[in-house]
Order: sequence, then structure tokens, then C-alpha cells
Amino acid sequence: MAPSGSFPAGEEDVRIVLAHGGGGELTKALVERHILPRLSNPLLTPLTDAAVLPDPGGPVCFSTDSFVVQPLEFPGGDIGRLAVCGTVNDVAVMGADVLGLSLALVLEEGLPLATLDRILDSVAAACCEAGVPVVTGDTKVVERRRGDGMILTTAGVGRRRKGVELAPGAIRAGDRILVSGGLAEHGLAVLSAREGLGFETDLRSDAAPLNGLIRALLDSGPGLRFLRDPTRGGLAGLLADVSEETGLGVEIEEEALPLSAAARGACEMLGLDPLAVANEGKLVAVAAPEAASRLLAACRAHPLGSRAALVGVFTGADRPLVELLTRSGGRRIVQRPYGEDLPRIC
Amino acid sequence: MAPSGSFPAGEEDVRIVLAHGGGGELTKALVERHILPRLSNPLLTPLTDAAVLPDPGGPVCFSTDSFVVQPLEFPGGDIGRLAVCGTVNDVAVMGADVLGLSLALVLEEGLPLATLDRILDSVAAACCEAGVPVVTGDTKVVERRRGDGMILTTAGVGRRRKGVELAPGAIRAGDRILVSGGLAEHGLAVLSAREGLGFETDLRSDAAPLNGLIRALLDSGPGLRFLRDPTRGGLAGLLADVSEETGLGVEIEEEALPLSAAARGACEMLGLDPLAVANEGKLVAVAAPEAASRLLAACRAHPLGSRAALVGVFTGADRPLVELLTRSGGRRIVQRPYGEDLPRIC
Repeated sequence: MAPSGSFPAGEEDVRIVLAHGGGGELTKALVERHILPRLSNPLLTPLTDAAVLPDPGGPVCFSTDSFVVQPLEFPGGDIGRLAVCGTVNDVAVMGADVLGLSLALVLEEGLPLATLDRILDSVAAACCEAGVPVVTGDTKVVERRRGDGMILTTAGVGRRRKGVELAPGAIRAGDRILVSGGLAEHGLAVLSAREGLGFETDLRSDAAPLNGLIRALLDSGPGLRFLRDPTRGGLAGLLADVSEETGLGVEIEEEALPLSAAARGACEMLGLDPLAVANEGKLVAVAAPEAASRLLAACRAHPLGSRAALVGVFTGADRPLVELLTRSGGRRIVQRPYGEDLPRIC
Repeated sequence: MAPSGSFPAGEEDVRIVLAHGGGGELTKALVERHILPRLSNPLLTPLTDAAVLPDPGGPVCFSTDSFVVQPLEFPGGDIGRLAVCGTVNDVAVMGADVLGLSLALVLEEGLPLATLDRILDSVAAACCEAGVPVVTGDTKVVERRRGDGMILTTAGVGRRRKGVELAPGAIRAGDRILVSGGLAEHGLAVLSAREGLGFETDLRSDAAPLNGLIRALLDSGPGLRFLRDPTRGGLAGLLADVSEETGLGVEIEEEALPLSAAARGACEMLGLDPLAVANEGKLVAVAAPEAASRLLAACRAHPLGSRAALVGVFTGADRPLVELLTRSGGRRIVQRPYGEDLPRIC
């Protein structure tokens, strides 16, 4: 059964074969019957070698990410939603309006066309939610392997807002750290869906396009120093990076961290540090002290930021470490995760 | 042995592990020791979420391609050179100056670090040749599978030249078709290196960045209607597409097609149509009749166009087919290749 109802008769059981990626008639049929009907827009549809975007009238922000998540579909999302949100967010955290995405599909021979269609529907829905079109793309097919299904790579182009320069270099001692919502939900939702590791939970991936929330913060006034989304490596990895880049210390309060009971429970059961688990729809913002409460209010007024909290502060350069002030009044040094607690979750 | 001599002591035998893609310390070490030393430039090196390119001052051309070639290294090139040239060329054929590339690496667990280093050296060399930097990137690692080694995805951003609008819609009956050099060399070189299919040949991949050659054509004066590089699907696929997009017929002369004796011999041996084999450093240009000989001369004056030839003409709309006028005086209809004569060659 085709969820989108767009299968031509006789295609219900079709699986991807190598020839779908060969650049010939079958590639053309795949693009025209399965990709374009879902993603069509005036910039993509000419299918020229490169899309032509209007003059941005300012500096261009440009980012890319590959997505290799297993399983392809999980509670709250799938690889398609992830690929759109991940790249939209990477461009948007530069203080940019996202103008367009590229989408490169690497499909595994044997992938059911119905699965591809569901993922493409999800790409289309996430693009609609973000208000950002896919403007150019590519399709390749690789030999059958272990059932990975597909790898998606998106790149994104944006126009940086005039006068906005968000960068670690702008951060000063005393600046406050804002987190837009509950941590660790994406990584835990993917794990809950993984064969062998499966566990019962209501957790759903938080994957979401943050460009609207970021626009709301920028529109609320000055005082925003830096934005980043805590994906791979989680909040721990992000703060370790920023501490290193600024040479400043960071103190975060365990008590203040937004963490749902379900996420806390799942982390305890799996022995994971929620600070190190990936998020795909959360924002970390650094705010000048005088702007912190206004930015918190702006964040909370947005549907994706309703659970936002101020969780910490940048301290001086004399102690360039990330420290967690624990619930019990202790101090623990937070380190960048070494390797891969949770493989292939984004 | 590290060809670039940049292995820290003890890393000679290192292979990629999942943690190299986890976003933690090992990812950071991979980026800082192996990627940045080769690709470093002022736009990439800040390693922000997105690169910031200067205001292009005009429409932006944007394209992407994934590369899944097997084997990773072949006579005349490797997957790294291919990934740079393929995307540079897709942006440049729009009549654009290429401003920057993204590079997303998906590495297979078990890949020797020395292989990765050689491919990155090749990416760097191709970027240098094209005069285009890698400005943003991503690294992921997938579980060991069948030894594919790596998949690269590049995207490219360019500034379209003022007043230049190359498109199939600009093509008129009577326009001439120029090919910049010998056909089929990339596909045949990759096949010659493939286990099981190996054959003796002096053929080398033609993979090359065409932005310099394209600049030379644009600088030579008006009359250029359309540019495209005949990659997957070869010249046959390209002409079938353009005939369909314009509704015009095409006649090409077998006698005029640039085809080396080695390529002709290899195609005969393998039973392949040289028109359907992929190229990665050849250009097809459509020229107004009065500009054809000037554009041919401009092409021949460039090192990558010395074997250029005028090979055919667009005929009227009454017979929208691609036809080959054979050496023996016959006519054969040239069709878009159906599927995958040559899997995974780009």
C-alpha cells in the first residue's frame, strides 16, 4: 500500500535496483514519478545542473550534513525529517534565513520503493514546516549490503541577516546559557526503536526545524551572542567546544536542565549521560546578561521553546572547564564524549 | 607509509572506527589531524556550523552530487578528485563562477586512515586545480559492510555571471554541438581497475574541473546557448535529455566524434557504446551557428579542450530524435541508456 496513493499501477512491490541510479530511463522515471511530485517547486522543477537562487543581497551561509541513522524510521521522525531539520538548523544558527536545500539520495539496492516514498513525504512535510524548498538533488544506488536502506546528504544555503554576527568570539564572561527544551529526546527515541536495544518509552524524537524559533529570538532585540544546536555529542560536546573556542569556563546547574521524567528514566536505565545524548530540535543560545530574560521569554512564547530554561553561565578565563553543579551540591567536570555512545542516530 | 608524511607516530596502521564519526574526541582528532591540514582555508577553518561566503552580488547557483565509485582509486583519479570535479562542473555549466564546495564524508568502519589521507590529498589537489575551496563539511562513519570504503557528497555554490543565461530554452534549430575532447575515458578507466573486469589499457579517467575552460568560452564572446557535462548516461543521455527539453531533433556525425583508439578498442572489447559511457572532464557546448568556429578555437586553445570538435547540429522540431550519421552513411537513433551499463563509476 502506498501511503501517498501515488504509485502507478503495478509498482506496489517495486524495490530499488542499481539501474535506478544509472542516469538512464529508470533514474528519470524515479525522479519524475516519486521525487518531483513530492518536492516540486519553481526552483527545483527545471532540473538544471544547478539551481539558480535569487541574489541573496548579503553574505551566504553554507552547510552540509550526511545522515546515516538506523532504523530509518523511529518515534517522532525518520531520516528524511532529520536531513531537512539538521541542515536548516546548521544554517539558521548562523543568524541566517535559509533559502534552499540540496538533497542527495544514496539508496541501497533492494530498498522498497514504498519506504522511499514515505521518507520523501516526510522530507516534503519538514520542508513545508521550515518554509525552505529542496532546490537541487542527486540520486545514486549502491549494491545490496546489510539493509541500511539509504544515506541522505543535505546542504543548505542561507542569507545572513544584516548586522548579525553570532560567533563564539562574541561571548563574554557573565553571559547566560539558554536551552530551548528537554534534552536527549532524539537519541533516546532512536535507540528505543533499534532492534535488540528496544525498550518501552513514550519518548519521541525532537527533530524540528529551528529557523522559526531563531527568527523569533533575533526579532526580539539585541543581546544574542551565539547559537548552536546540540546534536552529536549533545550539550556536553557543544559546551566543551565553546569553552575551548572562547577560553572561558562554563558552569551549568543540573537542577535547571530541562529533562523530562521519561528521558531521565531512559538514561538511567541505559547508563547514559543525558548531557551527551544527541538532540535534533533543541537550541542552545548564549545571551548577554541584560538580554537573558527577554530572550528566555521570546523562546518560551514559541511552540518549539515552551520548555526553555536558563541553565548556566560563562565564567572567567582562569578556569576554562565545563562544570556541572549537581543537584546534591557537588561539582563534576563535563567532558566532550570520547567516541560513540550511540552510533548512527543522526 | 603515509604519502603525505603527516601521520602522528603510531597512526600508520590505524583504521576508521565508529567513534571517528560520533562527534566526540575522536571525530575532533580526525578533523584536526587529517582533514584540516589538507583542506584548510580562511572560510573552512573557523569550523562554524555553516561557512560564511562573501555577498555574491548576483543569483546563486547551487548543486549537489554523491559519489559511490568502485574502486575508490583508478587510473587518472579517485573518488576525491571525482567529487570535486563533478560538483565544480555542475555549477560551472550554469555559467557561474564557483565560490565554494561542501564535502560530506561517509566512511566505512575499517577503512585504512592512509587511504582516507590519500583521497583527502586528492580532494585538496583538485580544489587547487579548480581554484575552489572546500568551505564546510561533515564526517560520519557507518558499520563495516562490504568494503565500499567511503561515499562522498559534495555541494557547490557559485555566482552566475551577469547577463549569462545558459538553458535548453535558448537553443534554436541550426545551433551547433561542440564536444571538448575524447569520449568515454572515465567510465572505461574505472572499469579497467575493477576486480574481475580488469583489462589492460592506457586509458585514464578524464576527471577534471571544467570551470577554467568554461570561463575561456564565456570570455571569448557571445553565442553560447547551453553547456552540460556528459557524465552518467554519457553523450547519448545528455542529447536525449536536451532533445526532449527543447523538442528539437539532433544529428551527430560518428566520423566527427572525438574518440581515442584506446577508447574505441576498449568499447569494442566490452561491447559498450562509447556514446553511453560516462565522462567526468568533458564539456558539451551548444553554439549559435555564427559563433561555433570561434568557440571551437577558444576551446582548443585551452589545455582541457585541445581535442575539441564540432560533432553535430540541432535540426527542426518535426523530428525530435537524436540520430547518429554513421561512418558507413547510415542513420541510427540514439536512445537514453535504459539503466546501468556501468554501475558505480561516478
